Amino acid sequence: MKLSIERATLLRAVSQAQSVVERRNTIPILANVLIEAEGDTVSFRATDLDIEVVDKAPAMVERAGATTVSAVTLHEIVRKLPDGALVTLSADAAAGRLTVQAGRSNFQLATLPKEDFPVMTSTEYSANFAAPAPVLRRLFDKSKFAISTEETRYYLNGVYFHVAEGETGPVLRAVATDGHRLARIDATLPDGAAGMPGVIVPRKTVGELRKLLDDDEAQIAVSVSETKIRFATPEITLTSKVIDGTFPDYARVIPLGNTRRLEVDAADFAKAVDRVATVSSERSRAVKLALDEDRLVLSVNAPDAGNAEEELAVAYADDRLEIGFNAKYLLEIASQVDRENAVFLFSSPGEPTLMREGNDTTAIYVVMPMRV
Amino acid sequence: MKLSIERATLLRAVSQAQSVVERRNTIPILANVLIEAEGDTVSFRATDLDIEVVDKAPAMVERAGATTVSAVTLHEIVRKLPDGALVTLSADAAAGRLTVQAGRSNFQLATLPKEDFPVMTSTEYSANFAAPAPVLRRLFDKSKFAISTEETRYYLNGVYFHVAEGETGPVLRAVATDGHRLARIDATLPDGAAGMPGVIVPRKTVGELRKLLDDDEAQIAVSVSETKIRFATPEITLTSKVIDGTFPDYARVIPLGNTRRLEVDAADFAKAVDRVATVSSERSRAVKLALDEDRLVLSVNAPDAGNAEEELAVAYADDRLEIGFNAKYLLEIASQVDRENAVFLFSSPGEPTLMREGNDTTAIYVVMPMRV
Repeated sequence: MKLSIERATLLRAVSQAQSVVERRNTIPILANVLIEAEGDTVSFRATDLDIEVVDKAPAMVERAGATTVSAVTLHEIVRKLPDGALVTLSADAAAGRLTVQAGRSNFQLATLPKEDFPVMTSTEYSANFAAPAPVLRRLFDKSKFAISTEETRYYLNGVYFHVAEGETGPVLRAVATDGHRLARIDATLPDGAAGMPGVIVPRKTVGELRKLLDDDEAQIAVSVSETKIRFATPEITLTSKVIDGTFPDYARVIPLGNTRRLEVDAADFAKAVDRVATVSSERSRAVKLALDEDRLVLSVNAPDAGNAEEELAVAYADDRLEIGFNAKYLLEIASQVDRENAVFLFSSPGEPTLMREGNDTTAIYVVMPMRV
Repeated sequence: MKLSIERATLLRAVSQAQSVVERRNTIPILANVLIEAEGDTVSFRATDLDIEVVDKAPAMVERAGATTVSAVTLHEIVRKLPDGALVTLSADAAAGRLTVQAGRSNFQLATLPKEDFPVMTSTEYSANFAAPAPVLRRLFDKSKFAISTEETRYYLNGVYFHVAEGETGPVLRAVATDGHRLARIDATLPDGAAGMPGVIVPRKTVGELRKLLDDDEAQIAVSVSETKIRFATPEITLTSKVIDGTFPDYARVIPLGNTRRLEVDAADFAKAVDRVATVSSERSRAVKLALDEDRLVLSVNAPDAGNAEEELAVAYADDRLEIGFNAKYLLEIASQVDRENAVFLFSSPGEPTLMREGNDTTAIYVVMPMRV
């Protein structure tokens, strides 16, 4: 294998690959990226056995072939090369070395045989559709904060991506929850997605996927089977196993009858929560919301450190209510609101609270209260 | 105590104080800042028992007095208050609370009695002089990277700040070394500094001092005794114990007879070292410098990962020489060079090498070679 490629193109392709590679792994080949050159294209393939990413880039291929080298080392080298450099990669199978050459820099990297690289088995996908990048971005960005980190509840360690019945027909839906809070985000169902099986997309996949979604104009090809999901742009293909488990019946958790309605500027609310939470250094600090007519008093009481109180002018026309929440959860859901005011719908101090952006029901959040 | 103060002024004063406070300490009062209000001034005092910082700020003092509260909590609160806010601090000694009030925010923080706060004992200083902030900044910025982190060699855990005999008379000098590399930085001796005792300024003090030195126009009042050093601007006074030990006779380490002279663009050199070092993930990776007429080849050989080589055009007119260095040390000294080329003076592959900026002998660096 021998090829030349522009440094910036190479850097982009290798960046995505190396981020999939697990830093700590005991199987040497999994630290490597598989480089395959043919025609006028080079591809970089990396995997952690659960996720596989393939990144294609144009290159001047002098001699077709393939090899594998350390993804992190290759990425570091390319990153440090001067901008605009032309990089030549040439593999010497006999010596077990890949030469990386640019200007007066010359690197010889240890390789492992391409045959040892675990290429993910191909799958029959039962649904194939295209979705605009901003649509997928919104679905995952607004839900991922609620993904559980508890490994024992592995079926909550991802975003449940599925087709559901929305208020005005079927929707493409992303749901995540850790049992304390829940996010449910809906988007218009793309053509061809109707029959897709519901899958739990793992947290790491959600993170890697994010890098494919920056271009507002991009259309992402999505393929889904019972066991895998694939996202592809013309350059990058990200294939991931999905979590083998059953996502709980989240609909039961979403309160439908909450009528006590609070409307508040989300940014002002978040800043006030952040300030009053300062007095307590505990991880799960409770903020008390005391509601009265058009008046919200936020307070935190930390017996040893002190207490804090802040008043906000809000829209609230129901009975007096006192309810407590984890400050971190309140901050996280408030930061999801970007266009309109945050609307909270409360029931009682012991029941889950619903939050949404204005009257938009395509993104709703549920948060469990805490005793205060 | 009761006073009002503008949020930005308060934030600046509390920032410096809270950074001196040790995050992990077992003596509760040391987590606190002592707030003292009198006349039209409020002062914030913090200490870790080795360093004491006092930051004075103008305030509207309604009732003189003093109290102590958690430095970190007060800082966090002030940081989160909106810009432009007027902050009122009022102490209620009977309740053991300090009220922090701004706009609709109200905080009550636990206090500890001001009597318990350990104020550093005053000292008779044997030398007092003024030095421009940029002069002190250069002395400490260019030497601190060489401070040892080995706790057993406590006498190397700081910068040796003293008066020495330079080439053209007495100078104010900063020296740091960890036994592998050494930095020696000279400045014109300020009036009144001639009699100052040589002191070892601890690493943490060097870090805290840096914040006093940003203003190019500032004159810093420096006071030195055998046991303490003090740096003061009109607002901030930083007093520190010095390290109780004897700094080694560093002059013995500085090679005077090195004649093999290499001149190289420092930035190009640093980038090349950084690149070739990439192939080795070891902490103390050795870079080999092979010198020939006007030609430098940098190389790293890591048996399992591969090897790297890079050639640089340099000015060198002596015999062929091969010498190895720790890549990190080379990078650190090369990054001290900012105006001119780096000049290296070599002796043999086993002897210390000297580095300076052009022909400037007021900042010299010594680095020990490694076997390659």
